[in-house]
Amino acid sequence: MFSVTVRDHIMIAHSFRGEVFGPAQRLHGATFLVDATFRREQLDDDDIVVDIGLATQELGALTGELNYRNLDNEPEFAGVNTSTEFLAKVIADRLADRVQQGALGEGARGIASISVTLHESHIAWASYERAL
Amino acid sequence: MFSVTVRDHIMIAHSFRGEVFGPAQRLHGATFLVDATFRREQLDDDDIVVDIGLATQELGALTGELNYRNLDNEPEFAGVNTSTEFLAKVIADRLADRVQQGALGEGARGIASISVTLHESHIAWASYERAL
Amino acid sequence: MFSVTVRDHIMIAHSFRGEVFGPAQRLHGATFLVDATFRREQLDDDDIVVDIGLATQELGALTGELNYRNLDNEPEFAGVNTSTEFLAKVIADRLADRVQQGALGEGARGIASISVTLHESHIAWASYERAL
Amino acid sequence: MFSVTVRDHIMIAHSFRGEVFGPAQRLHGATFLVDATFRREQLDDDDIVVDIGLATQELGALTGELNYRNLDNEPEFAGVNTSTEFLAKVIADRLADRVQQGALGEGARGIASISVTLHESHIAWASYERAL
Amino acid sequence: MFSVTVRDHIMIAHSFRGEVFGPAQRLHGATFLVDATFRREQLDDDDIVVDIGLATQELGALTGELNYRNLDNEPEFAGVNTSTEFLAKVIADRLADRVQQGALGEGARGIASISVTLHESHIAWASYERAL
Amino acid sequence: MFSVTVRDHIMIAHSFRGEVFGPAQRLHGATFLVDATFRREQLDDDDIVVDIGLATQELGALTGELNYRNLDNEPEFAGVNTSTEFLAKVIADRLADRVQQGALGEGARGIASISVTLHESHIAWASYERAL
Repeated sequence: MFSVTVRDHIMIAHSFRGEVFGPAQRLHGATFLVDATFRREQLDDDDIVVDIGLATQELGALTGELNYRNLDNEPEFAGVNTSTEFLAKVIADRLADRVQQGALGEGARGIASISVTLHESHIAWASYERAL
Repeated sequence: MFSVTVRDHIMIAHSFRGEVFGPAQRLHGATFLVDATFRREQLDDDDIVVDIGLATQELGALTGELNYRNLDNEPEFAGVNTSTEFLAKVIADRLADRVQQGALGEGARGIASISVTLHESHIAWASYERAL
Repeated sequence: MFSVTVRDHIMIAHSFRGEVFGPAQRLHGATFLVDATFRREQLDDDDIVVDIGLATQELGALTGELNYRNLDNEPEFAGVNTSTEFLAKVIADRLADRVQQGALGEGARGIASISVTLHESHIAWASYERAL
Repeated sequence: MFSVTVRDHIMIAHSFRGEVFGPAQRLHGATFLVDATFRREQLDDDDIVVDIGLATQELGALTGELNYRNLDNEPEFAGVNTSTEFLAKVIADRLADRVQQGALGEGARGIASISVTLHESHIAWASYERAL
Repeated sequence: MFSVTVRDHIMIAHSFRGEVFGPAQRLHGATFLVDATFRREQLDDDDIVVDIGLATQELGALTGELNYRNLDNEPEFAGVNTSTEFLAKVIADRLADRVQQGALGEGARGIASISVTLHESHIAWASYERAL
Repeated sequence: MFSVTVRDHIMIAHSFRGEVFGPAQRLHGATFLVDATFRREQLDDDDIVVDIGLATQELGALTGELNYRNLDNEPEFAGVNTSTEFLAKVIADRLADRVQQGALGEGARGIASISVTLHESHIAWASYERAL
């Protein structure tokens, strides 16, 4: 199995609801390093998993939808906690849609799965992995 | 599949028995960065894999049992080499026990597997993964 | 010249005023890795620059004053942009006060200068250095 | 499942053929950090996955075959793009051969799979994983 | 003293002349992580050292002049070894020119010095620092 | 001012004397990442600060004198605490001797200063800098 990973980052504000979150129930923020991994069994005709330029560009477009925002005000996230693991799934699902729409090129249709890891600090990170 | 990882570290002394270890048969030591990963299929009612505060606290309690010690003198490790991979299993098994005892909260009972990675330097690390 | 550095982190929300900041004028947030460095010419009687335990504890107390907050609402920061470089100075100045008050121990009175580096992402960081 | 990883690096020149590569069609180069991971279900009689000294030595021998070279001139890579993911497979396959030849010791015959990750920068990396 | 650093990277081919370089006399390549640091005594009217967006953009323009190239073919580097430390100076000098031309904004005219660090691997890096 | 840095590491056991060290008074250990930096005003005739191969080799020889040892048993360290900052000075002084003996080549005689940084974990490190 082959994989390729590209890294970007976002800087957002948000707050959490639930006693489990302690002081993180207050409005605060985070820098998330965003690692998007694409996996497949065989390389394409160019001997690659995915066009790393297109992958970086598409990831950048998706992180641009979240970057420099207060996620508490985004209607799509109403009623959920935008935890690190939840946001990893949001980005993975959107990337999967882009692959299926052909935005990462015809060769990328061979991608079997995607995983997204968000690093919230040097001592904590979270991931979501899904099939395509 | 979702995952959350938290990092801690320990500083221990130990020695190894067996020619394969060369100069590491002498009493020496290591800083181990300890990454504990919790995996599950679905997020809990708070939209998280595990309470990251409790996970950090429990990992800290377990690393505290090993930290600042000469592992050659710990009765529980008599007769084995406390290699990086062996210690990864020790911590993973203890964490699994804590999850099953409810120490990471009721929501954490949905955790499917745990892996622990110990980094012994910038150029070598080892892991152990197990189901819960 | 000797130095010792300890690392902590904070997760805050804030916004900036001024066209130069572009989309960062919106309410967003950041994880800042906070590296505090203490410098001196000679080691103290214990052969150290500073008690690393006390240094970590005092840095943790200072980062605790900022952590999980919206800095736009903190009266002490009214009228300024809480840029990465500005916050580095805030923490360095507060640490300097603590050293001078004796909070890092009598031995720490020999500390000659302090610098604080805040990493806002894997591709950007800022520092402030001052004499004591 | 246990694993052990060791890191080395290579510095090579190469170029790519195919419009998808844009400016990387020109002769350029890369430092690849090379992480080789060995996995197995049970530790061997020395309580390890593999002799980390031998693993480092064998990985070094393999990276030495590629290091400080223009891969465009290597006959074995004629007609393919030496992409990061392709090179990960080259190194993984060669390591697998070495394990099967007994070069990593008798104990290493229990290794179940190998994966190799090549980091081409702080924002992009690729992997290949295979059974033994 | 305040500083701000931004990171970019380049991937180049080159070779060295001189026995001291051993196998690096062959055509090979490198990924250089490029860290550009701007220092000044006082923050500007926006409470910053430099507009981090402009700094990133200008650094990107300068690295774009070197990226994906065989430096052996660049007339400007004829007769010198494009060592890591030499390239750090090239980029620092060009950045200094850009600051003096006003490309980093009027506020950036207060910048007192620039340093550039190039990481050629996880175990070797080089820097050049100069006044403005 | 130019600089070049090379990284190695050591794994040692030791203990500390003095109440300030708390649990670190027990025999424990550490992995120290060892970064050695060489600084000079002008590059030598090969356009470098120092032969990076020789620098790596000499640093390796010096770390080999400490590696896989219990520092409590080394006569040269009797009566002192082998703190991270103390060990940084030990290695810097020994490197300086080697430069002055010509072990890093004739070109290296232009080196103006040396600094050594020891990372004891991901959250603590120490340095010593001296003129040559």
